[in-house]
Amino acid sequence: MNPGDALRRLREGKPLVHQITNYVVMNETANATLALGALPVMAHAREEVEEMTALAGALVLNIGTLSPHWVDAMIAAGRAANERGVPVVLDPVGVGATRYRTDTARRILDEVDVTVLRGNAGKVATLVGIDAEVRGVESIAAGGDPAELARAAASQLGLVASVTGAVDHVSDGEAVTAVANGHPLLASITGTGCMSSAVTGCFLAVAESALDGAAEALVAFGVAGEDAAQVAVGPGSFHVALYDALAALDPATLNERAKVT
Amino acid sequence: MNPGDALRRLREGKPLVHQITNYVVMNETANATLALGALPVMAHAREEVEEMTALAGALVLNIGTLSPHWVDAMIAAGRAANERGVPVVLDPVGVGATRYRTDTARRILDEVDVTVLRGNAGKVATLVGIDAEVRGVESIAAGGDPAELARAAASQLGLVASVTGAVDHVSDGEAVTAVANGHPLLASITGTGCMSSAVTGCFLAVAESALDGAAEALVAFGVAGEDAAQVAVGPGSFHVALYDALAALDPATLNERAKVT
Amino acid sequence: MNPGDALRRLREGKPLVHQITNYVVMNETANATLALGALPVMAHAREEVEEMTALAGALVLNIGTLSPHWVDAMIAAGRAANERGVPVVLDPVGVGATRYRTDTARRILDEVDVTVLRGNAGKVATLVGIDAEVRGVESIAAGGDPAELARAAASQLGLVASVTGAVDHVSDGEAVTAVANGHPLLASITGTGCMSSAVTGCFLAVAESALDGAAEALVAFGVAGEDAAQVAVGPGSFHVALYDALAALDPATLNERAKVT
Repeated sequence: MNPGDALRRLREGKPLVHQITNYVVMNETANATLALGALPVMAHAREEVEEMTALAGALVLNIGTLSPHWVDAMIAAGRAANERGVPVVLDPVGVGATRYRTDTARRILDEVDVTVLRGNAGKVATLVGIDAEVRGVESIAAGGDPAELARAAASQLGLVASVTGAVDHVSDGEAVTAVANGHPLLASITGTGCMSSAVTGCFLAVAESALDGAAEALVAFGVAGEDAAQVAVGPGSFHVALYDALAALDPATLNERAKVT
Repeated sequence: MNPGDALRRLREGKPLVHQITNYVVMNETANATLALGALPVMAHAREEVEEMTALAGALVLNIGTLSPHWVDAMIAAGRAANERGVPVVLDPVGVGATRYRTDTARRILDEVDVTVLRGNAGKVATLVGIDAEVRGVESIAAGGDPAELARAAASQLGLVASVTGAVDHVSDGEAVTAVANGHPLLASITGTGCMSSAVTGCFLAVAESALDGAAEALVAFGVAGEDAAQVAVGPGSFHVALYDALAALDPATLNERAKVT
Repeated sequence: MNPGDALRRLREGKPLVHQITNYVVMNETANATLALGALPVMAHAREEVEEMTALAGALVLNIGTLSPHWVDAMIAAGRAANERGVPVVLDPVGVGATRYRTDTARRILDEVDVTVLRGNAGKVATLVGIDAEVRGVESIAAGGDPAELARAAASQLGLVASVTGAVDHVSDGEAVTAVANGHPLLASITGTGCMSSAVTGCFLAVAESALDGAAEALVAFGVAGEDAAQVAVGPGSFHVALYDALAALDPATLNERAKVT
């Protein structure tokens, strides 16, 4: 794992990251992608998603605001990504809150070969059948050891599980990488989870392995959050500073700032 | 009415506020809800709205960008809220500009037991059959006494009317509470009306009465607008400062800062 | 061409600008419209677009996030605009990336009398059949002379072509106006192209000719970008400062700040 080198490759390669995401955070994840140095594209029409995915270095599926046409487009884009070897990130926003969300996330996991599942402990636990408390899309608690949850989810679902929280845990079913970068202000605005999924897509497009890419993304996003918190007086100014910090991330110092075990 | 105590209850209880709102302001109303201390959830699929509403402390319906599927979902969510005693806010964005908007707002008022109707004088006047000048969704003028308009609308429609403007007037058909908090910069960005409806939902979830909750919300939002204006140099910086100010609202001083008669 | 006088007329007349645009930038283009001094309205339902367009001083069509219902609404709104002499701006976001985008832009150009086509060189080149490199919606390169491209596109399509880039070129098929205002930070956030199309709509609503209005809009938007860059430390703070700068644009100095040839 080498977040500094990965960020260099990302800024040189400027991968296109196709995002089928929710209405609430589209602008935010597009701007986070641009600030980091990649190119976002949002396209959800069944008429064009396969063609757009074929142009992309990664595909990010986010179920934050669902409807049937969008779910069909996500499945079609996911299959197109699989055919072409394009890595796929799934962010199961709101899983556990309603049956429709949970069923949709399970259907995507069934029909698409997801590379990285990025969610907090409650959502990931729900998807692997462990009891969790879910309130809407924002507040979630899951008992137990998050490192073990990441390993179990990765193993059971056959993917890399990226379980984010105060400390993040990324696992491919065997190794577990813990990332302790970040700041509590990240929880004060909507869409930072969705942004971390978009950033995961950016890093997957240039990663040496899915495990590395998922962890490198959380280091980079967490360090940007730490920097943004230095100049913020509340959630509004933190939100603004987060884009400035993503754009200012320094590949030369990223490795030494990584809090990884 | 006690905005300080209500804000304390809101931050302790962290109610989930289900919002079916327009594409333009979804991020903004979610972030205003979070900054205040409650939890937003956006969900509009007919497949899940009733289940989501059942989890919520309040439901906010906003017709700012309409289409038929969304209207059906709003009605279904509204009825689910009524069955469970969840308070419902309606924000009739753009009523009077097109027949579709006006018909939709009237249909919601017919089929759902709305707790609070939050809009400016022109829109509320249109809904109770008083002539008003409406231009798109932003600019509206209505003649006459806004206190009397609030009382008449509340009485005619059987709800609490929250008529916002330079001075806001909230009425249950008998009492009228006037709230003079706020700042002209609130009119310089899109979505502040929609945010005040979302904030109304937050306060309704913890209110002792709908009249109190609606007025407490406008005090809190108006005071935050006053604080944001202190550090703003224009609409962009005001927008950012508004979230900082909502998060920094102090329950201990809110009652004395309320300009209520 | 007189950007200062045009801005004065815009702020006095406060034209309503009807925008059928993409989910990513709706808030941004609405706030740019408001900051400049006009009134935005977003409405996309087939049930109401014709009625809304009839109230407007300009119509802006942007195909950034497409689906069939939206395309139908754009065509209907465009025809309603044509019947009433309301100027129409088309922003062909993503043209060249997928057949659906390219076909949709061509269909709109066939079925609607578009007043101004606003896009960068790659997209405009694609629409007139010149080879261009398109990556998603963000990164585009087209060979050749952009002034000649603007003239050829205007002549071939029978409209005013507004080809934006480091230097913008606006042509009615005969005259070509070059506008050199702007700042590289405008490319660091998503939606600035879409904002410039919205601002074009604002100026068309008060313009003496489509050629003048399109160029005046790019002067005003570019000068605001220059001012925002003075206080920005990165893309997040630039984004915020851009709204402040649009609101602070001074009609008295705009003409002398215009870099027009």
